[in-house]
Amino acid sequence: MSSKLKELTEKINQYINSIELVKQPEELYLPVDYCLNNGGKRVRPLMALLACDMFDGNIDHVTGPAVGMEIFHNFTLMHDDIMDEAPLRRGKPSVYKKWNANTAILSGDVMFAMAIQHIAKCPPEHLKTILDLFNKTVIEVCEGQQYDMNFETLDKVTEEQYINMIRLKTAVLPAACLQAGAVIAGASPEESRLIYDFGENVGIAFQIKDDWLDIFGDENTFGKKSGGDIIANKKTWLYIKAFEMANEYQLRDLRNAFTNRIFNPEEKISMVKKVYLELGLDQSALDKMEEYNSIAIASLDKIDIAKEKKEDLKELAQNLLDRAI
Amino acid sequence: MSSKLKELTEKINQYINSIELVKQPEELYLPVDYCLNNGGKRVRPLMALLACDMFDGNIDHVTGPAVGMEIFHNFTLMHDDIMDEAPLRRGKPSVYKKWNANTAILSGDVMFAMAIQHIAKCPPEHLKTILDLFNKTVIEVCEGQQYDMNFETLDKVTEEQYINMIRLKTAVLPAACLQAGAVIAGASPEESRLIYDFGENVGIAFQIKDDWLDIFGDENTFGKKSGGDIIANKKTWLYIKAFEMANEYQLRDLRNAFTNRIFNPEEKISMVKKVYLELGLDQSALDKMEEYNSIAIASLDKIDIAKEKKEDLKELAQNLLDRAI
Repeated sequence: MSSKLKELTEKINQYINSIELVKQPEELYLPVDYCLNNGGKRVRPLMALLACDMFDGNIDHVTGPAVGMEIFHNFTLMHDDIMDEAPLRRGKPSVYKKWNANTAILSGDVMFAMAIQHIAKCPPEHLKTILDLFNKTVIEVCEGQQYDMNFETLDKVTEEQYINMIRLKTAVLPAACLQAGAVIAGASPEESRLIYDFGENVGIAFQIKDDWLDIFGDENTFGKKSGGDIIANKKTWLYIKAFEMANEYQLRDLRNAFTNRIFNPEEKISMVKKVYLELGLDQSALDKMEEYNSIAIASLDKIDIAKEKKEDLKELAQNLLDRAI
Repeated sequence: MSSKLKELTEKINQYINSIELVKQPEELYLPVDYCLNNGGKRVRPLMALLACDMFDGNIDHVTGPAVGMEIFHNFTLMHDDIMDEAPLRRGKPSVYKKWNANTAILSGDVMFAMAIQHIAKCPPEHLKTILDLFNKTVIEVCEGQQYDMNFETLDKVTEEQYINMIRLKTAVLPAACLQAGAVIAGASPEESRLIYDFGENVGIAFQIKDDWLDIFGDENTFGKKSGGDIIANKKTWLYIKAFEMANEYQLRDLRNAFTNRIFNPEEKISMVKKVYLELGLDQSALDKMEEYNSIAIASLDKIDIAKEKKEDLKELAQNLLDRAI
């Protein structure tokens, strides 16, 4: 990580550490503290600070809103884990498991208000713009989560529907963070749009890599148990493309696996993985990721500022896609 | 209801009807529509409009934030019903019953963002003040709900703790609505504080009346089944005072009833109600309500504007306490 990335991450952590998180009633606030200090990489607020820095803005003006976005992100994790019945988050019990669902609902709700408190620390002349951006983003993230849940009961999901879902669920938040940083730094509407597009496409690329890692990643480096998406019958990019491309034998295997006629999890994973490999989807997914990454880079390149100013942001994006951080 | 109250309620409903509530994905938005159009009386936004009108403000400037507060209020109902396992809301299945808990969580979350969207329609010069007021209020409402849940497992709750809980859970939101109306109308900080105090104390009085109605109210007029708080072992004002004042025989009956050693619900209710009546708590609760109402009126009286300007607000508060509307 470059010294700039380290320095800005440190700044974000200092700000977060300065928030009085544990107050009364502590049943409400302990889960907030637990969730916010659970080893998150602060990627989203870092993006806001980097974008602000790139456009020569005052980073202190963006730290509040950036942390607000991070608190909002952690709020979505707290609620999503209930809905997705995900018992673990970054290797530790998720809030609804450590406490219970009611705690995760209410502590999440209070985090939402805390998020806006920090967003409201934005310079007054930008408050309306940043608040509108934030609200639009929150609504889109909720829509993305709803589409994701809808997919569970749909027979067929198209690639287009899938990309739209991950755009909403995953990509618009980093995009909004970048745009917030740019707006507060005084970037033009066109520059703000370009950096948003950069973030959105990096976000989509990131999620496709995430799907890939779940199946082809190294369990030890990646931290999650390999094949979780297959076990959960998740309609990922790989799943969707496999059903599109499979011949009749492969289709039979996929159907057997995903309708749970294969009960042994290891067997199910290896059966699906075999089809994915036969169809060359391990490489196609990486190509698709690269396609979105190229669109992202093209947007960033269009921003008319010195190339070296964009280096830190490019490094962060590359790190995300390489999963080196 | 006075023609002014009717006219302003109509204005609020027109604004709400103009919001495009049912969008895609409809699984997310249908519950929002259902919840927002479930026969709510619009008391909170009405308070905001009345306060604005009282200080000669432009009502159109406050309608957005007022509706934002109403959407937030409905969001809390959607999440509280999950936590409190309340199957009915205004006589109809609550969202988590009609759909499921995940739907109530996510549709609630999107309502929170929608609430802020409408709050953001406030005139720009007041946005920061109104947003800070809103965030503070949301956090307090969450704290109130947490205290209420904590009380379930506490052996002893004092009257002071109880009043503080209902202040947070119930009273600060109408108080904030009134203050928002006053601020947007250009009222002084002192006037804004006084109208906030009025709302807070009316809110506390209202909740004590609500506790009273649950046991001594007429089931047909009130709409809720009588004695629900007793069945749920809720630590209401009546419960707390009864345990404080009871002699040893009454104490034995209360303990038997509330530790569920009495299994028949009718028997449990009549046993508790008998003790409440013996202790004169039916009258004491009304006296306590009147005490808070008097504090409220005293705050309103201190505001230095013509008496007749305060009439509509007084009428609304009185209607609430009489439950005529």
